[in-house]
Amino acid sequence: MEAINQRIGEILARVRSSKPLIHHITNLVVMNDTANVTLHVGGLPVMAHDAEEVAEMVAHAGALVLNVGTLSPSWVESMLIAGRRANELGIPIVLDPVGAGATLLRTKTNRSLLSSLQIAVVRGNSGEIGALSGTGGEVRGVESIIAPDNPAAAARLLARTYRTVVALTGARDIITDGARVFTVSNGHIWLTTLTGTGCMATTMVAAFAAVERDYLLAAAGALAMFGLAAELAAEKAHGPASFKVALFDQIYNLTPEQVAAGARVTEIAG
Amino acid sequence: MEAINQRIGEILARVRSSKPLIHHITNLVVMNDTANVTLHVGGLPVMAHDAEEVAEMVAHAGALVLNVGTLSPSWVESMLIAGRRANELGIPIVLDPVGAGATLLRTKTNRSLLSSLQIAVVRGNSGEIGALSGTGGEVRGVESIIAPDNPAAAARLLARTYRTVVALTGARDIITDGARVFTVSNGHIWLTTLTGTGCMATTMVAAFAAVERDYLLAAAGALAMFGLAAELAAEKAHGPASFKVALFDQIYNLTPEQVAAGARVTEIAG
Amino acid sequence: MEAINQRIGEILARVRSSKPLIHHITNLVVMNDTANVTLHVGGLPVMAHDAEEVAEMVAHAGALVLNVGTLSPSWVESMLIAGRRANELGIPIVLDPVGAGATLLRTKTNRSLLSSLQIAVVRGNSGEIGALSGTGGEVRGVESIIAPDNPAAAARLLARTYRTVVALTGARDIITDGARVFTVSNGHIWLTTLTGTGCMATTMVAAFAAVERDYLLAAAGALAMFGLAAELAAEKAHGPASFKVALFDQIYNLTPEQVAAGARVTEIAG
Repeated sequence: MEAINQRIGEILARVRSSKPLIHHITNLVVMNDTANVTLHVGGLPVMAHDAEEVAEMVAHAGALVLNVGTLSPSWVESMLIAGRRANELGIPIVLDPVGAGATLLRTKTNRSLLSSLQIAVVRGNSGEIGALSGTGGEVRGVESIIAPDNPAAAARLLARTYRTVVALTGARDIITDGARVFTVSNGHIWLTTLTGTGCMATTMVAAFAAVERDYLLAAAGALAMFGLAAELAAEKAHGPASFKVALFDQIYNLTPEQVAAGARVTEIAG
Repeated sequence: MEAINQRIGEILARVRSSKPLIHHITNLVVMNDTANVTLHVGGLPVMAHDAEEVAEMVAHAGALVLNVGTLSPSWVESMLIAGRRANELGIPIVLDPVGAGATLLRTKTNRSLLSSLQIAVVRGNSGEIGALSGTGGEVRGVESIIAPDNPAAAARLLARTYRTVVALTGARDIITDGARVFTVSNGHIWLTTLTGTGCMATTMVAAFAAVERDYLLAAAGALAMFGLAAELAAEKAHGPASFKVALFDQIYNLTPEQVAAGARVTEIAG
Repeated sequence: MEAINQRIGEILARVRSSKPLIHHITNLVVMNDTANVTLHVGGLPVMAHDAEEVAEMVAHAGALVLNVGTLSPSWVESMLIAGRRANELGIPIVLDPVGAGATLLRTKTNRSLLSSLQIAVVRGNSGEIGALSGTGGEVRGVESIIAPDNPAAAARLLARTYRTVVALTGARDIITDGARVFTVSNGHIWLTTLTGTGCMATTMVAAFAAVERDYLLAAAGALAMFGLAAELAAEKAHGPASFKVALFDQIYNLTPEQVAAGARVTEIAG
């Protein structure tokens, strides 16, 4: 794994040096947090959702985040416009299928985005990935309540169906392109006490994917760094809000060397 | 009051064990804060406002929050759809009439929601409750500038008119169903230096109402816990932002036993 | 400069004593932060964007903030309605042209607002001011990537074109009405690691402009105070998030005397 860790550190170094613009069309709850995470990891954030400007905006981006956390039809229309332009230009799209499985609209919208666009990475929890892959799992609101029986199989199936990378986050993250499977064991239980940590992870993945075309590695590396930041932050936390302050500080402070040293990424039999 | 305090602690314990989903259709300013407060007190938050999914989403919720802080017609329409479904299913609705009295649109919209739906609890400041009850008071923006002459009478009148519980928050909170009147003297002046503390209180009330059908007690208990968290947070505050971090940490850390011991709830002559 | 510093302290004292309502029609990313900054500096915030209520709401305001960070047509329409009413009533408007230059829509919308309304102060970064003045500069997303060759000349030109005050923020802030030019050298590099610090500065300017009709002085004073708060906050920062907590605490804690003593405002040859 040392070669992988080395490469993960290098990806972070490239994010920091090239400062990719990460165009978000995202939900109303986490906009401020994910804009800050983008800056702290080393990118430049922009949130823009109007149909008239999204194609022009995304053309300057290193990656596009589509997050349906508080979706409405006009926003989904803009996601499709921006997504098609991103596909034309070879700009990676990271989809966060927030609440897929919780309502018909969310399941339908995410499947439509997956069918209409070439998505580079889908980052979701086990319930969402289970619902989208049709292998079970249950989502209440935006939380995974019941995981599919075999999360790795659900992720692999979804990845194959849409020819994408699936990053399923949880106590142990599973990242797969349908063939190879990586797991990431960095992270901390405090992450479950805060809203938007899944969305933050998605933003981290987008920043890494903006500078690394091996999206499997980019996603694994971003999740390892996010989890590592959480581990260090937990040492200073007195509760979820002080944990959040420390988490954001750590995302900013972590060096490529520290990430290369602390990432716990493993390739498992597919 | 010991029996009441005991019951308040038990309500919190039930929130923690049953993790009710709290569906918010709320304003754009506080979404992140109220999602976090929902998690910290022990529930699961979801923010969803599209007309196509709100009826389906609310069906899985323990309570529905309607908050008009940044209202627009399409959102109010969704509030009515979600609210009617909640009423059919017996799911309590907590209304936060942000800025009622400040503009005609806000006063009108809140009265319309109160007339069209069976609201379990209205949580507002004295200016808002005064404006809705027609007993005076003045609101500038979203802040109570002039309280009605007799806040308790204003709250009782509003509660009777719409057969609801009114929770009027301020230096001393007043909670009434139109007959019985409780006061809560927990709280701290730092709460007035932060935006969205009223909305946070509303979310706390919704989490308690999701697991306790005595809405008078649920509202009083939630406000006592919120005020108690503020008192403890104030000890660590160097200004409003460090107060906010400590407040959120405390909401998470407070145990049912601590809340039962620290709540200052009094029943006064109606 | 002692006379200027004295006047700046007095402006802050007036904000604190009169608590002006600052009506924001602003972007979805920073609403919570700018509402809090409004409260901490001494004003009352309200965020309201519906066409039906903005004219009524702004009539009670001390200043109106128009911020196009996440613009859409219906919001721009509300900006024009609120802005026209503000102009009729002599209420100062502060425009934040977020991302002007990044897309055609943003450049066009900001020019349209500048042409249609009498704007008291435009607060932007060097790329935005360069783009609006037509003197060069480049914006990626919402960040200034390349400044115009002569930022002060760009600011003066824009100020003259639209008969407004331009406050260009950066390592050294430049404030001009097209004739006189002030610079502010307060500030800290940490401000560049956080999202929304430009928007926060705009809100500070609006609070000062609400109580001081010399908008050149109001803008310079507000930016000096914001920069001074950042300098003090930096002493307690371990990263961008702990810096943000300290920054907000400092905005609240700074006294008129401290601001008068610490402001570094200089008038330079125009």
